[in-house]
Amino acid sequence: MNKDKDSKRKQIAILGSTGSIGTQALQVIEEHPDLYEVYALTANNRVEQLIAQVRKFQPEVVVIANEDKYGQLKEALADLPVKVYAGTEAICQMVESGPIDIVLTAMVGYAGLKPTIHAIRARKTIALANKETLVVAGELINQLAQQYHSPILPVDSEHSAVFQCLTGEIGNPIEKIILTASGGPFRTCSMEQLKTVTKVQALKHPNWDMGAKVTIDSASLMNKGFEMIEAKWLFGVAPQQIEVVVHPQSVIHSMVQFEDGSIKAQLGMPDMRLPIQYAFSYPDRVRSSFDRIDFATCSNLTFEQPDTTRFRNLALAYEAMNRGGNMPCIVNAANEVVVASFLKDGISFLGMSDVIEKTMERATFVAAPTYDDYVASDAEARKIAASFVPSFPA
Amino acid sequence: MNKDKDSKRKQIAILGSTGSIGTQALQVIEEHPDLYEVYALTANNRVEQLIAQVRKFQPEVVVIANEDKYGQLKEALADLPVKVYAGTEAICQMVESGPIDIVLTAMVGYAGLKPTIHAIRARKTIALANKETLVVAGELINQLAQQYHSPILPVDSEHSAVFQCLTGEIGNPIEKIILTASGGPFRTCSMEQLKTVTKVQALKHPNWDMGAKVTIDSASLMNKGFEMIEAKWLFGVAPQQIEVVVHPQSVIHSMVQFEDGSIKAQLGMPDMRLPIQYAFSYPDRVRSSFDRIDFATCSNLTFEQPDTTRFRNLALAYEAMNRGGNMPCIVNAANEVVVASFLKDGISFLGMSDVIEKTMERATFVAAPTYDDYVASDAEARKIAASFVPSFPA
Repeated sequence: MNKDKDSKRKQIAILGSTGSIGTQALQVIEEHPDLYEVYALTANNRVEQLIAQVRKFQPEVVVIANEDKYGQLKEALADLPVKVYAGTEAICQMVESGPIDIVLTAMVGYAGLKPTIHAIRARKTIALANKETLVVAGELINQLAQQYHSPILPVDSEHSAVFQCLTGEIGNPIEKIILTASGGPFRTCSMEQLKTVTKVQALKHPNWDMGAKVTIDSASLMNKGFEMIEAKWLFGVAPQQIEVVVHPQSVIHSMVQFEDGSIKAQLGMPDMRLPIQYAFSYPDRVRSSFDRIDFATCSNLTFEQPDTTRFRNLALAYEAMNRGGNMPCIVNAANEVVVASFLKDGISFLGMSDVIEKTMERATFVAAPTYDDYVASDAEARKIAASFVPSFPA
Repeated sequence: MNKDKDSKRKQIAILGSTGSIGTQALQVIEEHPDLYEVYALTANNRVEQLIAQVRKFQPEVVVIANEDKYGQLKEALADLPVKVYAGTEAICQMVESGPIDIVLTAMVGYAGLKPTIHAIRARKTIALANKETLVVAGELINQLAQQYHSPILPVDSEHSAVFQCLTGEIGNPIEKIILTASGGPFRTCSMEQLKTVTKVQALKHPNWDMGAKVTIDSASLMNKGFEMIEAKWLFGVAPQQIEVVVHPQSVIHSMVQFEDGSIKAQLGMPDMRLPIQYAFSYPDRVRSSFDRIDFATCSNLTFEQPDTTRFRNLALAYEAMNRGGNMPCIVNAANEVVVASFLKDGISFLGMSDVIEKTMERATFVAAPTYDDYVASDAEARKIAASFVPSFPA
């Protein structure tokens, strides 16, 4: 690949390149070699896959977060000019590199926070796929993004939809953001059925093919709860201006209602490559070969109210958003613990909400947290949550 | 009302103020006296209603198109400082008046063309509610609008929807415009049933409360055919980029598909005040008390393919759009004749399409018409159509 410095191709760093978003981002880049170039790839553990990606996309830099895998990575890439590093600190340093235009934050969970902060401080454009960043520390991130003039472009399909609906509407206040939710695989399950659902069932999402963590979060509607919190920070609205509507077909990706009563919606087939590509190409749009909606097939779009009795996580997340401070950080930490446990059959589906609620009650509330407060809250909440999950860590 | 010349209120001239769009435009103005002021009102025949409007909104100028009603109007308004005129020429002169910011063209049919041309030449912003203007002479109107830098803002709910979806998308090519159609009152009628439907049935539109002419056009789908032609001129797309989808709930007002496959849609309750207000406030949006969509009620949005066997007008309009030249002008003239006849029980519902088709076959085709060609084509097509309608003029 041509590394000509005069090239106008956007230089992209993908944090979490072996995950679902990361691999789809690479597909987008592969389809547009005239527009985008991979500057750096990082992964947590999947070193074999990372090696294959480096061979194919020839980045300048590659980082493996798990330092135990450094030797294997270094050796496998010895014949290439790529710089090889290991560890979280190396990721934080790499994102500050001069040539990077866009940092796609596609790693899973709380781990995404620190590198994102580094990228913002280096005034990079953030293509934000790591939702925990804003859930945990939205206020801090917003403040830094403003201070360093670092644009944050959402990659989540829902927030990308809202973002697309807001183009050209500068100065027109948002009345309401309507986030659509597929309802997940258990949308029609009774409370009784929910008591016994398994991780195998939870991992079968009806519309979207995603990583395990976010798929469980989708089944429990915690994902939608987090998206409310993200929307609050991304679009500067109050909690009561955010509404969740269950829309099982996942064709309308979300909507914005303006003060005149007009609603704008963004629609598309469920395909994460579209919002990824939009974050890369914004404010332009780039031709794609993605499937188009056929209204002869998508002939029926339905809407339901979410049920916070069966899906308590949605109510817990709303409460956390409403209380503010470090409460979303606490919910996120507790959720990471219970989801990891659920994936190891250590806790029941409904039990997850119980533990999150208890953690919210017991963890120390901080109204105006600093970065260090977030780190402490995260650790404290994980400890509390783990104490309610007998088999954790398994 | 304060007529202070320093006022920043937009001065609005409403052509066709006693019709459905005109009266709703006045409601919008009444709700926002801080933003909008009526500069002029015109009507065709309804002089009593016009007098009442003048008393209430105190415009500078009022014009009645039907000169026989001038005396009555002048006398009734003798105590007011309003200037009173009569005749089509007076409307054409009035729209050129200096203080006017926006001319809302809300008169019915071909009659809207000439005053619109005058307003464009006077570099006014056109809030276009008269769809025949673009149907008949889209190429000419576009050329004049460009030459005189006169913005044309669509008021039709469908085109307003498309226009709203296009804000902020400058430079991003349209892949497809998807115009939604309610399907009208006869959507589910068989061919056999359509043979005997009456004007009383045709005038009962399921979702929209509109004037008689456009309500019949909606029932016959000629309205949607005209909207395709309008869309071609308003948004600079080719005929094959325009798709009609039947959407009986009339909640999604239309959509735009971009080259990346993303679709943007505009939604709202069926209420013409919203697109009227948007044309007045553009690019801003103004707070309104219009009903909001409640997705608990609007819980099912459906889509069907239009049936051009039962609704031949849609195919005829598409053919006219595809052939171009004066063909849409011919279709419009023939349609005005048959609708007038249908409203007097002079022709059957299905008979209307027969006459339009025969007129298309016999009228003189002009590939690159001038304004005079349009006038001649309109007259010729009316004569031909009338010859097929025995009872016309009734």
